[in-house]
Amino acid sequence: MTTTGRVTLPIEVGIDDEVKTLMQRLGADAVRNSDGTELPDLVHELAAKVYSTYFPARGDQEWAVANPETTTHLYLMSPRTAAMEETLEIDIMEGYLREQIQPDVEVDRELFWQVIDRTTGETLPTTDWEILDADGKVRIKRAQTGHVYTVNFLARQIWDGTQMYNYITNNWDEDPKRHKERPYNVRQEKVWNRVRSELGNWLNEHSEVDVVRFTTFFYHFTLVFNSDRKEKFVDWFGYTASVSPEAINAFKEEYGYHITPEDFVDEGYYNCSFRVPSKAFRDWVNFQHRFVTSRVRELTDAVHAAGKEAMMFLGDNWIGTEPYGPHFKDTGLDAVVGSVGNAATCRMISDIPHVKYTEGRFLPYFFPDVFNENGDPVGEANVSWMAARRAIVRKPLDRIGYGGYLSLAIKFPEFVDRIEAICQEFRDIYQAAEGKTPVNSPVRVAVMNAWGSLRTWQTHMVAHALAYEQTQPYVGVLESLAGLPFDVKFISFEDALAGALDNFDVVINVGEAGTAFSGGRYWADPALQATVRQFVARGGGLIGVGEPAGLSYGGAFNQLSDIFGVDREQSWSLSTDKYPHLVAEHFITASESGCGCSCGAKVGDAAGPGAGNVRGQLKVDVTGGARYWVPVVTDVDILQMNGVSVELSARNFGAGRSVYFAGLPFSQQNARLLQKAIYWAAGKEETYKESIHAASPAVDVAVYDNGSVFVYNSSLEAVTTQVFNLNGETVEVELDALGSIWFNK
Amino acid sequence: MTTTGRVTLPIEVGIDDEVKTLMQRLGADAVRNSDGTELPDLVHELAAKVYSTYFPARGDQEWAVANPETTTHLYLMSPRTAAMEETLEIDIMEGYLREQIQPDVEVDRELFWQVIDRTTGETLPTTDWEILDADGKVRIKRAQTGHVYTVNFLARQIWDGTQMYNYITNNWDEDPKRHKERPYNVRQEKVWNRVRSELGNWLNEHSEVDVVRFTTFFYHFTLVFNSDRKEKFVDWFGYTASVSPEAINAFKEEYGYHITPEDFVDEGYYNCSFRVPSKAFRDWVNFQHRFVTSRVRELTDAVHAAGKEAMMFLGDNWIGTEPYGPHFKDTGLDAVVGSVGNAATCRMISDIPHVKYTEGRFLPYFFPDVFNENGDPVGEANVSWMAARRAIVRKPLDRIGYGGYLSLAIKFPEFVDRIEAICQEFRDIYQAAEGKTPVNSPVRVAVMNAWGSLRTWQTHMVAHALAYEQTQPYVGVLESLAGLPFDVKFISFEDALAGALDNFDVVINVGEAGTAFSGGRYWADPALQATVRQFVARGGGLIGVGEPAGLSYGGAFNQLSDIFGVDREQSWSLSTDKYPHLVAEHFITASESGCGCSCGAKVGDAAGPGAGNVRGQLKVDVTGGARYWVPVVTDVDILQMNGVSVELSARNFGAGRSVYFAGLPFSQQNARLLQKAIYWAAGKEETYKESIHAASPAVDVAVYDNGSVFVYNSSLEAVTTQVFNLNGETVEVELDALGSIWFNK
Repeated sequence: MTTTGRVTLPIEVGIDDEVKTLMQRLGADAVRNSDGTELPDLVHELAAKVYSTYFPARGDQEWAVANPETTTHLYLMSPRTAAMEETLEIDIMEGYLREQIQPDVEVDRELFWQVIDRTTGETLPTTDWEILDADGKVRIKRAQTGHVYTVNFLARQIWDGTQMYNYITNNWDEDPKRHKERPYNVRQEKVWNRVRSELGNWLNEHSEVDVVRFTTFFYHFTLVFNSDRKEKFVDWFGYTASVSPEAINAFKEEYGYHITPEDFVDEGYYNCSFRVPSKAFRDWVNFQHRFVTSRVRELTDAVHAAGKEAMMFLGDNWIGTEPYGPHFKDTGLDAVVGSVGNAATCRMISDIPHVKYTEGRFLPYFFPDVFNENGDPVGEANVSWMAARRAIVRKPLDRIGYGGYLSLAIKFPEFVDRIEAICQEFRDIYQAAEGKTPVNSPVRVAVMNAWGSLRTWQTHMVAHALAYEQTQPYVGVLESLAGLPFDVKFISFEDALAGALDNFDVVINVGEAGTAFSGGRYWADPALQATVRQFVARGGGLIGVGEPAGLSYGGAFNQLSDIFGVDREQSWSLSTDKYPHLVAEHFITASESGCGCSCGAKVGDAAGPGAGNVRGQLKVDVTGGARYWVPVVTDVDILQMNGVSVELSARNFGAGRSVYFAGLPFSQQNARLLQKAIYWAAGKEETYKESIHAASPAVDVAVYDNGSVFVYNSSLEAVTTQVFNLNGETVEVELDALGSIWFNK
Repeated sequence: MTTTGRVTLPIEVGIDDEVKTLMQRLGADAVRNSDGTELPDLVHELAAKVYSTYFPARGDQEWAVANPETTTHLYLMSPRTAAMEETLEIDIMEGYLREQIQPDVEVDRELFWQVIDRTTGETLPTTDWEILDADGKVRIKRAQTGHVYTVNFLARQIWDGTQMYNYITNNWDEDPKRHKERPYNVRQEKVWNRVRSELGNWLNEHSEVDVVRFTTFFYHFTLVFNSDRKEKFVDWFGYTASVSPEAINAFKEEYGYHITPEDFVDEGYYNCSFRVPSKAFRDWVNFQHRFVTSRVRELTDAVHAAGKEAMMFLGDNWIGTEPYGPHFKDTGLDAVVGSVGNAATCRMISDIPHVKYTEGRFLPYFFPDVFNENGDPVGEANVSWMAARRAIVRKPLDRIGYGGYLSLAIKFPEFVDRIEAICQEFRDIYQAAEGKTPVNSPVRVAVMNAWGSLRTWQTHMVAHALAYEQTQPYVGVLESLAGLPFDVKFISFEDALAGALDNFDVVINVGEAGTAFSGGRYWADPALQATVRQFVARGGGLIGVGEPAGLSYGGAFNQLSDIFGVDREQSWSLSTDKYPHLVAEHFITASESGCGCSCGAKVGDAAGPGAGNVRGQLKVDVTGGARYWVPVVTDVDILQMNGVSVELSARNFGAGRSVYFAGLPFSQQNARLLQKAIYWAAGKEETYKESIHAASPAVDVAVYDNGSVFVYNSSLEAVTTQVFNLNGETVEVELDALGSIWFNK
């Protein structure tokens, strides 16, 4: 049955008929403009909500140019430079883009600059160095030969990150109407007064707008370009560009200490979210989160007073909004919209609390990079929908939408057909679920890391859903969980120490040693170790992926190696013999549909081809994961090994259990392995066996309180498989690529 | 021309005619017995030297059994055990073999036992724990819940390691004539008196023996079996079994401090040679080295007084002899014989100073594991000779020989043919070289690590030439150098700090971070960093393999990343963009014979097949080497990359140069790459180009002072290649597998 609603369409001037047709076909009940398009007059006629973008911290360029002292700042570090004699000159701007960055040589360098001997870790007294010119060239007068030095410096950011990206990417140098937009800092009272009054004026002038789509607020995530106008550093979670002398002074007043350049520069790692966060950085995040959310509230109050809704785009200048932070509830926002890159980013949006609704902007964006004769917009829409649907089923977005140039998309009729069907399927799922989430497994799962709930669904993300070779084995855990039927919470080590583990059946620690996600120095805390040991000993499940509890000391790298029974071989134990106890069959790897490799063998077939294949066993793909983890006890079951490296193992510890994966890049098969590992770690294999589920890992199942059962093929190939325990029976289903079917329990 | 000499043959009773024939065919001028064979009466007639094995520390079992208090000791650690309540009992013998190990519960546990909380690192006061029984079960009375504990304990070693291995391997339980042999400790005056008098008697009784082949002296390398009678821990360099209350007390008297159980147990890593050695362990090695060599001297004096030669087998009970140690010169040994596993082990033997001659025992050993109908003794002899010849050419052994049962080998006539030819080729090389080493490149090379010269040619070795997956990428450097025309020295970081770098053109730092070979905590020393930086800045060459200078702090993992221009991505800089500057052509990778892959393409061919092949480029195989090393500066030349990981890079720094390899498992191609990298790092490309060398990496060339040039195929395939600069000309040579040819310059 065709329904309407819950869909936002980007529209533009000059294609009114097409807009009307498309709105009808997609069932769109809202329209929006995009970067580079204007809303047509048609919006006054449409029976649809109208969104309009709004840029509170860079929309007012004439004023910004007239008030150059209002720019935002950021902290940067010079190149690491070795001194080969007593005097060393460092060109701090080497590699940076002068169009974006301007060293702030006016500020007190004692407070806002810092020269560090990186070989010894010492900060040089200001008497030992001087700033030579406005370009920020620095001369160190008393350097030690053979030591490496860096300069931390405060700089003005004279070009907004997103606008810089758009400008350079689209080559707007050629366009006389385009200017480089300067961001201004709402921490300055003069700026803040201007921002409020401008929004007031704009609200008065835009009666056709129902929803103010803030893009976004005040501080851009860290985005620094190099002298070739290419990206040099990007951190979607970065607070580096939220600094300013005003903010730092206010911080001192509130927290009682001066936050130093090095607290931000962080040895050149800039507190990226992979770093175990320092106390100073956490303080800063809290400080700015409170400030930003309180100022957002003043704007949303104004929007509401004008009878409109306030929506935030989750990106660009979103720093300080922290949707899972303690003060987000105070923003007064009605909605959040974000780009859906995969299942995890979808959950990041759909799980956001304290808003009336969430909206996912689906891919592909209607831009020429995909919508050209060599592009594959239908294919991209399918891949995007496949990933997003896994998340949406578990926790629905309230709305979906697209972005970009509609005039471009309508030249691809097959694409329009495809998204018409996707919009309808989205509504069908939403309706069948009656606004509720499906029934989760009784196994309660915690992902434990240094960030905890603040970075819910954001762990291991880099610049949104971008893929990095090193993060694949770990972000795959998140991507798997985003579509699995578990109640998943993100907890911090502090939460665990405060007793949070009591609320969970299984705890997952995933990541590379030394990162915030694995935990790094946290594992030196005997209390944390004792807490986790007691949790497992009393019956809890512990799952480690990559280098869990990784911190080399006291005879172990994995500080919970006595639980896992495996540890990383640091080449200090090469002389200790390992006798891996390989088990041919285990609940975790037992396949219900075949051997798990690509050979196509089914359960009951003779052994599949390929060395090491065990018939009827799922194989975990750990590509890029941890290497050289080895058994360190005799009673750990090794489920999969590669050379000397353990790839999957399982072990009992007290009344509990542990499972180790070397890595878990996302695939349906790996998601199934994680699902079964969670059940096994919780000691609930029978519950899994009795649950409604499909034999094929490609096929997911969601069971609703109202008796509906949604069976969907999360792969791009047709699948015939069995669904178990449907009204006590096993039912064979045939599903096309991405196909789905509804049952009643 | 057929010559004779320089060859030792193992002989036995009952095959006199065959012995005579074989001696003649091989040109053998010495005979020996082996483990399990007796010298025949024939030896009195033979015009050959006679070797006889002698076991000073376990040859006298009747006495050993009668004096059980004389056994040697060793230090061990119990399993890591978590306390889940206040009382914790640890079965310290869990996993150990009671036939070999007996906890010594008679000693003062305050001095010789230690219970450690591994979670906090604290040693428990002896009031907090007790030994429950003679099996060494320990009860901790005041444990902290959730902490992990271990017991370090002194134990008696009641079974000699090598004899245990032979006994178990050959199933001597069935043989009533065989007993488990107990090692006795010459530190006890009673034992020492007995050992000296027994040797005296033996020398008197064995007039037929010319050479006493000590197998070996007093302390076995660490070899511990598990309760299943399988190897549990083996460290060919291990001093753990050289301890005893007597020695520890003597140490205290000399060094002024008590050396603790933990100084040996070392968190369970037992000071394996991969550990950055502690001061206490170094002191112990020096202490025992002095003791062992001084007692060896008393035995060799006795041998010499009897008119015989003293030879040491480099293995078994060799601990404390340290052939490259400062006191080895005092042993009075005439010769050392060792097993030649590869080129590096061959150099380890042939480079030993202060002896009249060295002898290599070649493989295969005449044992049934190879000499059976499924074995390939000829193939093994070829592989062994291929590796050994590379080393022998650079630094000749004075003699070679075989071991095992001659009666077995003569059943394989093709094998006898082959070793006859090998013996002759060995003599030919020795003779042509006139006892000298060939001319080395003028580039002087140092391998720099924590062990320095003490472990010359022994770095990254594990249990002699055994192969470990993790060591291949690093031990390959040693194996390459062992056959390359460079003057190679091994220096310690202390040597470098004392100015040793002045004597070298190129310094190599190779290994995994945290190991003695890479250097671990040494790199926290600013003086070391400054020393290396100044060396390179002034024109030196620096080559890093794996994780050189790896010690994460101050914004770098590779503490010399400013020199190398590459560093390990610890996932803290994922947000920093990398723009690898891939260079298509470079001296290091430029091939003179083809593209370096297995495609068979030659220089001048069109590009070879396979993605990423650059015609005429050598490819380095880094299998198992370091991952996720990335460029951190813009001006580093990347010669080879795999995904995001740099596999080979080169960079200028000041007047010097650096080269980084992710790994370098041994192959002829990798050896050639290292050779060229050394020349390049030294700034001596022209010297390489002008040198006599072959185009094919498979073919090695040695040039002698006397004008002889030896060209030899170090591969098992026939090669046709060009040899450059032979009397100013390029000569094409055709060589069979392992073939060789002599020229005159």
